[in-house]
Amino acid sequence: MHTFEELSRLFIERFNTDHFPKEPASLYEPNRYFLKLGGKRVRPVLCLMGNELFGDISQDAMHAATAIELFHNFTLIHDDIMDKAPLRRGNETVHQKFGESTALLAGDVMLVAAYEYLNRISPNHSSLIISLFNKTAREVCEGQQLDMDFEKRDNVGYDEYLNMINLKTSVLLAASLKMGTILGGALERNQNLIYEFGRKLGLAFQVQDDYLDAFGDPEKFGKQVGGDIKANKKTFLLIHAFETATPAQKEELHALLNNNSEDKVSQVLNIFKACGVDEWARALKEKYMEQAFDHLEDIAVLTKRKEPLKELALYLTQRQH
Amino acid sequence: MHTFEELSRLFIERFNTDHFPKEPASLYEPNRYFLKLGGKRVRPVLCLMGNELFGDISQDAMHAATAIELFHNFTLIHDDIMDKAPLRRGNETVHQKFGESTALLAGDVMLVAAYEYLNRISPNHSSLIISLFNKTAREVCEGQQLDMDFEKRDNVGYDEYLNMINLKTSVLLAASLKMGTILGGALERNQNLIYEFGRKLGLAFQVQDDYLDAFGDPEKFGKQVGGDIKANKKTFLLIHAFETATPAQKEELHALLNNNSEDKVSQVLNIFKACGVDEWARALKEKYMEQAFDHLEDIAVLTKRKEPLKELALYLTQRQH
Repeated sequence: MHTFEELSRLFIERFNTDHFPKEPASLYEPNRYFLKLGGKRVRPVLCLMGNELFGDISQDAMHAATAIELFHNFTLIHDDIMDKAPLRRGNETVHQKFGESTALLAGDVMLVAAYEYLNRISPNHSSLIISLFNKTAREVCEGQQLDMDFEKRDNVGYDEYLNMINLKTSVLLAASLKMGTILGGALERNQNLIYEFGRKLGLAFQVQDDYLDAFGDPEKFGKQVGGDIKANKKTFLLIHAFETATPAQKEELHALLNNNSEDKVSQVLNIFKACGVDEWARALKEKYMEQAFDHLEDIAVLTKRKEPLKELALYLTQRQH
Repeated sequence: MHTFEELSRLFIERFNTDHFPKEPASLYEPNRYFLKLGGKRVRPVLCLMGNELFGDISQDAMHAATAIELFHNFTLIHDDIMDKAPLRRGNETVHQKFGESTALLAGDVMLVAAYEYLNRISPNHSSLIISLFNKTAREVCEGQQLDMDFEKRDNVGYDEYLNMINLKTSVLLAASLKMGTILGGALERNQNLIYEFGRKLGLAFQVQDDYLDAFGDPEKFGKQVGGDIKANKKTFLLIHAFETATPAQKEELHALLNNNSEDKVSQVLNIFKACGVDEWARALKEKYMEQAFDHLEDIAVLTKRKEPLKELALYLTQRQH
C-alpha cells in the first residue's frame, strides 16, 4: 500500500521517459515541451490506487495510467487552442509557442500515443479497458462541446451544468479509478462503486473549484479571486444564484454581467451572499463528498486498503488553493 | 471475388449508418454532415480487397475498413482547419460551417470512433491491427507536419519530399491493404508485399496528381490546371525542376514564384518542359507502377485473385482527372 505522494513519485519516475521519436522535431518537440510543464498527475495515480485497492500494482495498470495521462494532456493542448489560452501552468501554451496548426497535430499524435500504451495491456483485459477509455474520451469531448455551447447561452440550468461538468471533469477521474480496479481483478460491483466514488469526487472537486474562485482566501488561493465572475463564466454559484434570486436581484445580476464595472466582482459576490450561494455550495460539496464516501464504504475490501483514496479525496476537496 | 464498384457499394451500404449518438447535436451534427459529403472510399475498399485476396470478406475486415474511413475523415477535418480550406468536395468544410473549435473537437471524436470499431475486431487479431493502425496514424501526422514545414522552406530536396508524400499519403493506402490481408490470414511475407504494393501505388498516384495539375487536359481535369503552380506548392515537378534547371532557369523560376504575374502558370510550364519535367514525371510514375505490380506479382495467391487490385491500381493512376 502506498500513499498519494509515493504513487505520484513512482508514476512520475516511469512517465518521465520519451514517449515520442526524435524526428520530426517540429511535431514532437511541442509534446515534449508540454509534458515537461508537469502537473499533479492525479488521474494516473487514481488508476494506480484503484489497482492497489485489490492487489499489487501491475505493469498493465502502469500502461493504463500512462495512457490516461497522455490523453489528459491531449485534451489540455486542444482545449487551450479552443479557449485561446496563452498560458498553462505559468508557461506558454503549445499553440502560443508553436502555432495553432502544430498544436492541433501535436495533440492528435498525443492521443495516438495514448492508444499505443493501451495496446500494450494484456489481451485478457485490453478490450474492456479500451472500451471504457473510448467511452470516456467521447464523453470528455461532449463535455467540452457543451461547455462551449453554454458560453453562448444565458439560460443554462443546474441539471445541464451538472451534466456538462460530469462529462468534462468527473468521468475521467471515475474511469481512471475503474481501469485500475478492472486490472486488479475487481468484481463488476466493486468496479461500479469505485466509478461512482470517482464521479462524485469529481463533482465535489468542481464545486470546491467554483467556490474558491469566488470565496477563497486571496492569500491562500494563489491567483486572483473572482476570475470566473469577471469572465462571466458559468459556475455552480452563478447558476444557483440565477435559480434562487428575486426578480430584482436577477435583473441586477444581468446588468452586472453585461457591463464590466470596476466593482463587478464585489457586487456579484454581494448578490451571491444575499442568495445564500456560499452556504449552498459548501453544503453541495459536502453532499457529493458523502455520496462519494458511501460508495467507497460499500466496496468489499478491507477498510485499511481504502485509506489512501480517502486521504486523496480529502486533499483534493479541502484544499484552499 | 468482387470488383471495385461492387466492394465500394457493399462498403458504402454498411458505412451509411449513424456512427454517432444524437446528442449533443452541436458536436455530432458536424460529423454527420461531413461523412455525408461522400468520397470514393478508396481506403476501406483497399482493406476489403486485401481481405478478399485470401478468403471471404470477414466482419473483422468490415470493422477495420470502417475505422480506416473514419480515420481518413478525421485527418481531412483537421487538415482543412490547418490549410484554412473553405471547401471540400464542393461543400463548406466543417470549420467553415461550424467554427474552428467545433471542427477540432468533431475531428477528435471521429478519431475516437475509429478506435471503437477497431476494438470490435476479434481478440486474436486486434492487437496487431491496432498496432499497425497506431503506427500509420502517427506517420500520417508526421507527413502533415512535414508538409507544413516544407511550405516555409524553398530548398526541399527530392528525397525529403518523397518521404513526406510517403508518410502523408502512401502509408495509409498500404496499411489499409495490409490490415485486410492480416485479417484474411495471410503469411507475413504476403502482408509485407501487399504493403509495398500499396506504398508504391500511393507514390505513383501522387506523381500522377502533381502531373495532372500541371499538364492535365483542362477539359478532362475538371478543375483549373496550374493550381499548384499558382500556390507555389511543392510538387514532384517543381522539386525536380529545381534539381535539374540551369542556373539561369533556376533564377527565372525563383522570380516567377516570388511574384504572381498573370502568365506565371504558362511561364513555369515552359521551364518545366525545357527541363524535361513532364517526361521525367511520366517515367517516374511508370517506375512506381512497375515496382507496385512486381510486389503484387510476388504474392503467393492465384493470379486471378489479384485482378481487382490491378484494375483499381490502373484506375487510380491512369485517370485524367
